Amino acid sequence: MSLDRLSLNTATTKRWTLQEAVDGAVRAGLPAIGVWRDRVQEAGVAEAAKIVADAGLRVSSLCRGGFLTAEDEGDATAALDDNRRAIVEAATLGTRELIMVVGGLPAATAPGGPARTGTTGRDLVGARQRVADRIGELAPFAAGHGVRLVLEPLHPIFAADRAVISTLGQSLDIAEPFPADVVGVVIDTYHVWWDPDLQRQIARAGAAGRIASYQVCDWILPLAADPLLSRGHVGDGYIDFATITRWVAETGYTGDVEVEIFNETIWDTPGDETVATLAERYLRLVQPFL
Amino acid sequence: MSLDRLSLNTATTKRWTLQEAVDGAVRAGLPAIGVWRDRVQEAGVAEAAKIVADAGLRVSSLCRGGFLTAEDEGDATAALDDNRRAIVEAATLGTRELIMVVGGLPAATAPGGPARTGTTGRDLVGARQRVADRIGELAPFAAGHGVRLVLEPLHPIFAADRAVISTLGQSLDIAEPFPADVVGVVIDTYHVWWDPDLQRQIARAGAAGRIASYQVCDWILPLAADPLLSRGHVGDGYIDFATITRWVAETGYTGDVEVEIFNETIWDTPGDETVATLAERYLRLVQPFL
Repeated sequence: MSLDRLSLNTATTKRWTLQEAVDGAVRAGLPAIGVWRDRVQEAGVAEAAKIVADAGLRVSSLCRGGFLTAEDEGDATAALDDNRRAIVEAATLGTRELIMVVGGLPAATAPGGPARTGTTGRDLVGARQRVADRIGELAPFAAGHGVRLVLEPLHPIFAADRAVISTLGQSLDIAEPFPADVVGVVIDTYHVWWDPDLQRQIARAGAAGRIASYQVCDWILPLAADPLLSRGHVGDGYIDFATITRWVAETGYTGDVEVEIFNETIWDTPGDETVATLAERYLRLVQPFL
Repeated sequence: MSLDRLSLNTATTKRWTLQEAVDGAVRAGLPAIGVWRDRVQEAGVAEAAKIVADAGLRVSSLCRGGFLTAEDEGDATAALDDNRRAIVEAATLGTRELIMVVGGLPAATAPGGPARTGTTGRDLVGARQRVADRIGELAPFAAGHGVRLVLEPLHPIFAADRAVISTLGQSLDIAEPFPADVVGVVIDTYHVWWDPDLQRQIARAGAAGRIASYQVCDWILPLAADPLLSRGHVGDGYIDFATITRWVAETGYTGDVEVEIFNETIWDTPGDETVATLAERYLRLVQPFL
């Protein structure tokens, strides 16, 4: 029993600065940390890299790039520029995995607010094609910096407003034209646990060498008022972690297992307590199946 | 422009009795009605059949059978018995389409409340297999009554607590061993709009002769506190009805288009107003693409 593949995502201990999260991970014996850009930018990228390196932690991933579905040319250009900055940040931090949340439908995400009783901005097929096209635009820049664009399928509850990529299979279809070290996928149990095709697609992702991260947190009910914050500690919800973890392990995946939980109650809990809980759940419900 | 394929589901005008819903549909010029069992049982099955027949309406479907995932033998037997009653009701009402909401995980649906911090009752693969097995048990009885068991994939937001069938493709996989007139599928835009494989699976369902119903309502945001009630009138949300309706039409589907909306605000609206709105939306956003 060991924590040697467990990574704390900074979103899980949201009230902690990067330095505090790094210190908390070290205190608990975790070897890795997954970092959100807000915490990196707050510290400054160079300083953030130093904080993590001085602590001797691995950076399992940087969250996040993406938001590539804009119809407006100016918005699209701004999004591509921001993704290039994220790629540089990932390289500076010493991680090759940049998680991409690809964005929702223009009707649900446009700055002016959603269109009502209409039909514009609802072309899901078109939005998905724009994601594929813009991944193609970013890929050479990412490759040049030794960074992988990691497509994250989000639970279909977020298909309208956050990510038009909803399944692992769809992520792999988009990744397929690119080398495995340039475009990968993340398997986040919260987003994909329900997928009847999951076993097959995990195997496919592993065979292609595209599994960039395995993230664990649970699907709890009732949903929180903001469904974004409706994640729970492993074991508090309905996901079969033994089965999904076995499927991931069977591919030969040897990377980190990251815990990323958005949940107001957990955020209100002292960070050390949260880290202790996630380590205990990991050792009991995930690690034995890795 | 015509309403000759539009069906009012009684859940949309929830405050109306069956007689009131039938009268409302007739007043608005609708030729069909989709009926929930609570409204049928309230009137009595024979009387319900007479109410609909006297009005000259078609019954596009009966909602609903299902809930087939129990692990407990007694619960499973009770569920099968209830489904046999639903089959008889459908036959008596003169519809051959019995919608099946197949049930969730035992951990989320057990009478004693959900198990916590555990692992039991979370075997999604096993729950899905039980559904397939029990559809097999019910199929001969359904066939003997001229009734089709219509599998309804539910949005993955409901995978834990209501339906372990989450995609149209999965429904078709379960249906495949049975004749097309014994096990079918329903395409409900609310549940399947996000599916990257939707066009292909709709074509597959059509080619197999398994499309029992096309149901339309919209995905609105923010989600209602109870996500079950988070449906909107066509055009009030983010679904691309033109595209999905074209995909259904391309299969040669000539059946009814049913409007089934669960939404407190709509339920608080006078029924005639609701029916007028859904007819207007149908004529503008669905019918032109049929």
